[in-house]
Amino acid sequence: MSVSDDNVPVAIVDRPADVTAEITTLPPEEAQKVAAEIRAVAERRGDDSEVFDLVEIGDTGRVRRPSAAPPPLPSELAAPAIPEDQLTADELRDAWPLLDLEERSDGLRVLLREDAEEFFVALPPVDQAALVQHFRPGQRRQWIRMLEPDDVVDVIQRANENHRDQLLALLDAPTRKEVTALLAYQEDEAGGLMSPRYARLRPQMTVGEAISYLQRQARDRVETIYTAYVLDPEQRLLGVVSFRDLLASDPKRTVAEIMETAVQRVTDEMDREAVSRVFAEHDLNVIPVVDRDGRMKGIVTVDDIVDVVREAATEDAQKFGGVEVLDLPYLQSSRREMIRKRGRWLLILLIGEMLTATALGFFEKELIAVLALFLPLIISSGGNAGSQASTLVIRAMALGEVRGRDWWLVVRREVVIGFALGALLGVLAAVRVLIWGAAGSYGAHWVLIGVTVALSVTGCVLWGTLAGSMLPFALRRVGADPANASAPLVATLVDVSGIIIYFTIVKMVLTGVLV
Amino acid sequence: MSVSDDNVPVAIVDRPADVTAEITTLPPEEAQKVAAEIRAVAERRGDDSEVFDLVEIGDTGRVRRPSAAPPPLPSELAAPAIPEDQLTADELRDAWPLLDLEERSDGLRVLLREDAEEFFVALPPVDQAALVQHFRPGQRRQWIRMLEPDDVVDVIQRANENHRDQLLALLDAPTRKEVTALLAYQEDEAGGLMSPRYARLRPQMTVGEAISYLQRQARDRVETIYTAYVLDPEQRLLGVVSFRDLLASDPKRTVAEIMETAVQRVTDEMDREAVSRVFAEHDLNVIPVVDRDGRMKGIVTVDDIVDVVREAATEDAQKFGGVEVLDLPYLQSSRREMIRKRGRWLLILLIGEMLTATALGFFEKELIAVLALFLPLIISSGGNAGSQASTLVIRAMALGEVRGRDWWLVVRREVVIGFALGALLGVLAAVRVLIWGAAGSYGAHWVLIGVTVALSVTGCVLWGTLAGSMLPFALRRVGADPANASAPLVATLVDVSGIIIYFTIVKMVLTGVLV
Repeated sequence: MSVSDDNVPVAIVDRPADVTAEITTLPPEEAQKVAAEIRAVAERRGDDSEVFDLVEIGDTGRVRRPSAAPPPLPSELAAPAIPEDQLTADELRDAWPLLDLEERSDGLRVLLREDAEEFFVALPPVDQAALVQHFRPGQRRQWIRMLEPDDVVDVIQRANENHRDQLLALLDAPTRKEVTALLAYQEDEAGGLMSPRYARLRPQMTVGEAISYLQRQARDRVETIYTAYVLDPEQRLLGVVSFRDLLASDPKRTVAEIMETAVQRVTDEMDREAVSRVFAEHDLNVIPVVDRDGRMKGIVTVDDIVDVVREAATEDAQKFGGVEVLDLPYLQSSRREMIRKRGRWLLILLIGEMLTATALGFFEKELIAVLALFLPLIISSGGNAGSQASTLVIRAMALGEVRGRDWWLVVRREVVIGFALGALLGVLAAVRVLIWGAAGSYGAHWVLIGVTVALSVTGCVLWGTLAGSMLPFALRRVGADPANASAPLVATLVDVSGIIIYFTIVKMVLTGVLV
Repeated sequence: MSVSDDNVPVAIVDRPADVTAEITTLPPEEAQKVAAEIRAVAERRGDDSEVFDLVEIGDTGRVRRPSAAPPPLPSELAAPAIPEDQLTADELRDAWPLLDLEERSDGLRVLLREDAEEFFVALPPVDQAALVQHFRPGQRRQWIRMLEPDDVVDVIQRANENHRDQLLALLDAPTRKEVTALLAYQEDEAGGLMSPRYARLRPQMTVGEAISYLQRQARDRVETIYTAYVLDPEQRLLGVVSFRDLLASDPKRTVAEIMETAVQRVTDEMDREAVSRVFAEHDLNVIPVVDRDGRMKGIVTVDDIVDVVREAATEDAQKFGGVEVLDLPYLQSSRREMIRKRGRWLLILLIGEMLTATALGFFEKELIAVLALFLPLIISSGGNAGSQASTLVIRAMALGEVRGRDWWLVVRREVVIGFALGALLGVLAAVRVLIWGAAGSYGAHWVLIGVTVALSVTGCVLWGTLAGSMLPFALRRVGADPANASAPLVATLVDVSGIIIYFTIVKMVLTGVLV
């Protein structure tokens, strides 16, 4: 997704009008039918949709273009400007997750053309790719040309291998060149996020020349004229000026005199999550991307960073829940994919859990009913404490608060915390055993059983806390994503070791008494 | 945090120079000592800091101001402009998480003044609040005046109750008025995110007048001149124009003619996560905030949304891991707070787990060693499947992909998926039992035990999947955050019911045989 300088999708404004002129629309009766169907789907969800209600304050959903007729008087502005059976963008958006590809494509064709464009441009790339490939070949050109080069790249990366060249061929020559250059980058690199359409200035220009040069580019295709980069003839980045600074400066001074020379920048091969941390640390709105030799390649804007942050959080959450990262939104993922992406981890975890049967096998003599009663309680306490610890460490790592070298700091904290939590839970568990025990539930040795349970809970919680907090560091050390220290993985690890802790304590405390 | 129009922190540029003139710095020897200490801390982490290495390409870390002397020649630009013992902002940033308040305050005072300002303005509000309160009363004024009104609000909200009025008193009168108005909003509302400093135009102005009017505001305190809102005399929002549109239009036309009248907007009481979804759905960079009567109150910019998305993801991750949301970053939270925020949930979960002992008590007769062997394996499989399902549903809800009304769609999917996964795991578990059983580990009835385990795993996985996917809906229905359907909570729920499933199947299959 790329920034335009404006909040309303005036990307439209910057593009030749003929681009969308040929998009076919459905015949009126059919269009009404489609609209009614989609509206029905949307209504089913409507009650629950807080966003829908709140956003629609006097908003007709239409975008009026600068080239349109003189605007209505203010009194007319509030009145709905669209016929009642016209599907609105908000209705389509509300129904969107439940529609199949055919219905989505019909829905877009039923919308007013401006709304359809705006709607399409704001869709996630995976939806854009599906739609572009679904449209008849004659229509594809108009739709794909609505997108900025970096968005086209996202679409092409998500399209079928054998569609890619065809889609590239639909672009005009300069855009195709830009897109081809961007396609060389990995999706998770800064280069895969950047737009090559930034405004450039030369250092020796005067402020006055710079303003009128940028002003001429206002109709042009650069993403933003508000931040301009000052380059030398080898395209090396010398500095940056904002349009606002230019306006506030004496028009006779040179750009070199007023530019900021110390510009935060990132390299084109930098990981996108690292880029997002640079944005957060420096409170940036846009950052230049340079190659190894310091040559400027493009810009990354903060709205792309929102998507990076959101996607990274989703991936981490899914990994932490023990699911392989989904390519599509939940409701759009096929059942087959779901079963594959969840089943793989479940099978691995099951094989891990089988070790619990093996571990218990070693204690078969001690595995008498009264002791087995407390087994789930003890091992789960450890697993829960471990999930907490791994969550905190994984998230702190994702935010850059904790780095690989800080493991020793974390161990020191977690030993104290794990012991305190373990003791607390151990006492509570003992109280439970002693009350039931005094009532005669656990035979003659209920006090010793209470002691055993208390010690085991304390040990398992301490061990779970340490294992949960260290597993993310271990994964990171071997080059894996710390988020893979999932709650189920930590729980499985602690289940197996918890059994050994429990029955070792049983043997120590109860040998000759119960076992 | 608020946007300025520029990527480099030129917030400095817009402020009167005297604001920072009085900030005291440390005496030189002491400053060198502090710098050395902080650098030592930073170095300990340095090896692991990918961001640090990558960002520092020929960047001296200094910000050159427009008012400075003529810039050096390009050849000089690459040479470091700072003495070697000078602490850089990047070194301080690297060491920051490990420093206490005193060291942080010293670190800021050791930095070059421009760097210190930039650094301070980009800090999270919780750090700014701690620092402002830590500074001597005479210094507070300078630091707090560096911040935009919405940032001041964040600081004041995080300050001690009894410091708030004092801090407000440090502001100049117009800012104090703005801040007081913003303080009326909840932190999690759009009103708590917005900046009141936006550019306004009247509809009857000509384009030429509008440009020079905005140009005059370039030195002024509005957050952005690049997007201007057209208001009627009652401050009702009529439309929006971008500076770029103005530049591209005939200067003799009126603003009313070229403005976009259908403006996406949010109300001041809208929840901030809902605002962030509106940004995502419409691909916005800035959105106007209006009150109940349609009067414009301020703007929310996309960089504030990055923080909202990041914080919401952190809160959800912590809840899902079974931790109460932390107020401070992991390494800064006190052990006492950690124990409280983790202990509360662990105790609740332990009380839940005690039901496993109670449930097992009902099956004490069946709880013979050979059957207890498989207990952890069976209940954990269900818990793992449940964690997966709740992760997926919680995240899909957070992204707006699944809403409350969609529970029936989710049930239909999850029944199929849960059954398929259950059958798969059941078969694998049976294979394990049959192999060991054939080898003589489980006595005479190993085939029936295998059947029992297979059916129990299938049942527990199916049940876990359904429980995990429905719990977020149930929580939402009662007004709680779905993210509270944490992995530990789901696992505990499934542990208890898994025991009942397992021993019910044991009774059905093995009564008269083993038990």
